[in-house]
Amino acid sequence: MSIRVTVWSEYRHEQNPGKPQEVYPNGMHNAIADFLKSQPGLEVRTATLDEPEHGLTEEVLANTDVMTWWGHLAHGEVKDEIVDRVQNAVLEGMGLIVLHSGHFSKIFRRLMGTTCNLKWREIGEKERLWVIDPAHPIANGLGEYFEIPHEEMYGERFDIPQPDELVFVSWFAGGEVFRSGCCWHRGRGKVFYFRPGHETFPVYYQEEVRKVIANAVRWAAPPETAVPEFGHRPEPLEKL
Amino acid sequence: MSIRVTVWSEYRHEQNPGKPQEVYPNGMHNAIADFLKSQPGLEVRTATLDEPEHGLTEEVLANTDVMTWWGHLAHGEVKDEIVDRVQNAVLEGMGLIVLHSGHFSKIFRRLMGTTCNLKWREIGEKERLWVIDPAHPIANGLGEYFEIPHEEMYGERFDIPQPDELVFVSWFAGGEVFRSGCCWHRGRGKVFYFRPGHETFPVYYQEEVRKVIANAVRWAAPPETAVPEFGHRPEPLEKL
Amino acid sequence: MSIRVTVWSEYRHEQNPGKPQEVYPNGMHNAIADFLKSQPGLEVRTATLDEPEHGLTEEVLANTDVMTWWGHLAHGEVKDEIVDRVQNAVLEGMGLIVLHSGHFSKIFRRLMGTTCNLKWREIGEKERLWVIDPAHPIANGLGEYFEIPHEEMYGERFDIPQPDELVFVSWFAGGEVFRSGCCWHRGRGKVFYFRPGHETFPVYYQEEVRKVIANAVRWAAPPETAVPEFGHRPEPLEKL
Amino acid sequence: MSIRVTVWSEYRHEQNPGKPQEVYPNGMHNAIADFLKSQPGLEVRTATLDEPEHGLTEEVLANTDVMTWWGHLAHGEVKDEIVDRVQNAVLEGMGLIVLHSGHFSKIFRRLMGTTCNLKWREIGEKERLWVIDPAHPIANGLGEYFEIPHEEMYGERFDIPQPDELVFVSWFAGGEVFRSGCCWHRGRGKVFYFRPGHETFPVYYQEEVRKVIANAVRWAAPPETAVPEFGHRPEPLEKL
Repeated sequence: MSIRVTVWSEYRHEQNPGKPQEVYPNGMHNAIADFLKSQPGLEVRTATLDEPEHGLTEEVLANTDVMTWWGHLAHGEVKDEIVDRVQNAVLEGMGLIVLHSGHFSKIFRRLMGTTCNLKWREIGEKERLWVIDPAHPIANGLGEYFEIPHEEMYGERFDIPQPDELVFVSWFAGGEVFRSGCCWHRGRGKVFYFRPGHETFPVYYQEEVRKVIANAVRWAAPPETAVPEFGHRPEPLEKL
Repeated sequence: MSIRVTVWSEYRHEQNPGKPQEVYPNGMHNAIADFLKSQPGLEVRTATLDEPEHGLTEEVLANTDVMTWWGHLAHGEVKDEIVDRVQNAVLEGMGLIVLHSGHFSKIFRRLMGTTCNLKWREIGEKERLWVIDPAHPIANGLGEYFEIPHEEMYGERFDIPQPDELVFVSWFAGGEVFRSGCCWHRGRGKVFYFRPGHETFPVYYQEEVRKVIANAVRWAAPPETAVPEFGHRPEPLEKL
Repeated sequence: MSIRVTVWSEYRHEQNPGKPQEVYPNGMHNAIADFLKSQPGLEVRTATLDEPEHGLTEEVLANTDVMTWWGHLAHGEVKDEIVDRVQNAVLEGMGLIVLHSGHFSKIFRRLMGTTCNLKWREIGEKERLWVIDPAHPIANGLGEYFEIPHEEMYGERFDIPQPDELVFVSWFAGGEVFRSGCCWHRGRGKVFYFRPGHETFPVYYQEEVRKVIANAVRWAAPPETAVPEFGHRPEPLEKL
Repeated sequence: MSIRVTVWSEYRHEQNPGKPQEVYPNGMHNAIADFLKSQPGLEVRTATLDEPEHGLTEEVLANTDVMTWWGHLAHGEVKDEIVDRVQNAVLEGMGLIVLHSGHFSKIFRRLMGTTCNLKWREIGEKERLWVIDPAHPIANGLGEYFEIPHEEMYGERFDIPQPDELVFVSWFAGGEVFRSGCCWHRGRGKVFYFRPGHETFPVYYQEEVRKVIANAVRWAAPPETAVPEFGHRPEPLEKL
């Protein structure tokens, strides 16, 4: 059975002339979606901010197993009711993969309960991502580390809850470290934060980055467990 | 140096004739505060929902190291701006101890990012709290378990993020289990959820329950670490 | 590609007349293996204590992706060199599923670093296993809880490291609780402890128990990550 | 009440002419112990490998709340019976702070269950330790990071169980990262691994390093919880 993936992106940088448009002429979402479409067992669609309901209608969510999320300039334009909808979907089992500047999206901050703040610097320095947990399926197929030749720096302190599982830690040439691959369970859903992906560098074309996203999609696919019944339970299970 | 504690409570049940008022004639907050005042090194005040700003002015928060929170009927009446204020205080280092039905408070749900839903039953059955992590300071001075003769039942699935440290698991006579003592770090602050404390039973007079709350207050006292600088960092730490 | 499973069992109880033999005439290992053989994508063999090298030759280990382990009477008879071999295999990626009284096996204690001690009582009381983490793949296909009508009781304090992921907590009629489904990563390998399976009750014929074991086998399959290079690294990755 | 600390060290490097002796003329243990003695509420003694029973008699252990451990050349000379004794002490509540090359000590590997292997390089490069968890008491009094101008490099993959709490991550000039401050509970005891401290650099004279060790001693002090009763429990707590 296929995993149904919705690749969501703000899609603003790439609509105007400039570096992001040169790097991603069809938008970052299509670069990600095109790759995922080439993977067996995935059914992939895209959705973007300026579509009605940001492309995230009830119907789309009902047919999404895993969503990836990239946003940057326009976090504030994402409507609270759509954030509610995505949060509910996650708590009911949908996987969510938050990419790069999505750390500051309403949905990620909502699910984390913290500011999700960090340090950043945009001089295109080298990033080296070390595999900290080689037993983790999200690291499948990787070597001990991989490098991104030019990236925006994100540095600790990254204000997130301690990850349930920490998969990657980044080294930056300028002197910082960062927890670059972080897993959490929230409700019946799984959340993965993956750091790379500044809009001015061709990061989402890089093989290792794509491998991680594909692995994360499989890891984050919804469980088939029963939905818990919450609320009042009139009768005890045992005779008292 | 003293730990400055603010015991917050909704204080509604106990203002009207009935079981809660009989059990806690001065309100639950005073039962908790009176005990904490008897402990060395704690400076204790109370605050309640119906005071201006719910008793949680900027000035009170600036002078609070650890807050305890009990609410039930009126979670919806807590103003969002005060929830923002308390959340910020936690992220900046204030400890927060959420008691019993406080699981459904805005502040706890905000910090957790999940529904915080659970099962419940009100027949006054027996609860037995097992110490799962005897190395934890919140279990100091306890035996292997303690019992509360009559309590409301809370049952799993409890929809919370996996605790960083799980201190207690409850057994209920009616057949359920519950993660009754759960620790998380959020920002520079610490959060402890402690299950017992239904308003119709004299739970907050019980010695073990009081010991746990006092231990938790000490555990949750703010760290003295530097406040991280977030945001743009123009210069790398290393020469590139 | 198939997952190659080795079902290991002490196979002593069932060789002599008595309840275990009545319940498992071909041994517990065959009851488990026969079920796993019926599952798609698994290649299953068995191995037992009294075979040469306990059936766990270098060749067998080199061809095992996931091992299940049941032992009870004869933990002390397992040779240390075989324990070394199994430990190495786990650290290099083999999954290990430790069942019931296997909590006291040399291999489990070795991997945990603690006594793995617990409380126990053998009156055949009821056990109810609650799903604590419905997002976890090991809970796939289960309801909110399942019951085993008659089981040996295992009670907390269970002296193990805090699980990386806690999937099940058991309620026992006699008043105890127990962390019944616990996950850890060790090296490149995954370890799952699953509580049920006393030799005098037909637990390994129960549908939910079988589902959990099958789920755990899939969860514990080895990663395809690079083997880390350890030791001396003469040259820095960066020019200094 | 004082915390009784035993500072254990191999004390071999410093007995022969060379860099370690120049840096630590009275041995590393005395450099650490002298500092700890200056801290309020600590009672400090030392013990070294070449004393009878490595200085770790039953009597010493019975009077130790927290032990620090530094070893390097002679891990293999530590007698297994003394390792058993220290492991038992930890499981019964003694805190253990493992320093630098102590990662490869028998006691640390025993408590972790993994190889505890890592990468290393000895060119005296810069290490910068980032505070990852500013809510943690072991980070008390520190800034956002601190630097050690010249250190041996230790690099990931560090083959340890996922820490219960990750306090520091190191950046190394040569391109590696490392989980430099890691907490675990084992039995009723607490274990902290702290990376810095190569024998040829004056690391244990550095203020921040000393602050971390002092904080860790306080964090690791034994709990006052009841010792769990393990084993057979003939009677249920509840009537069945």
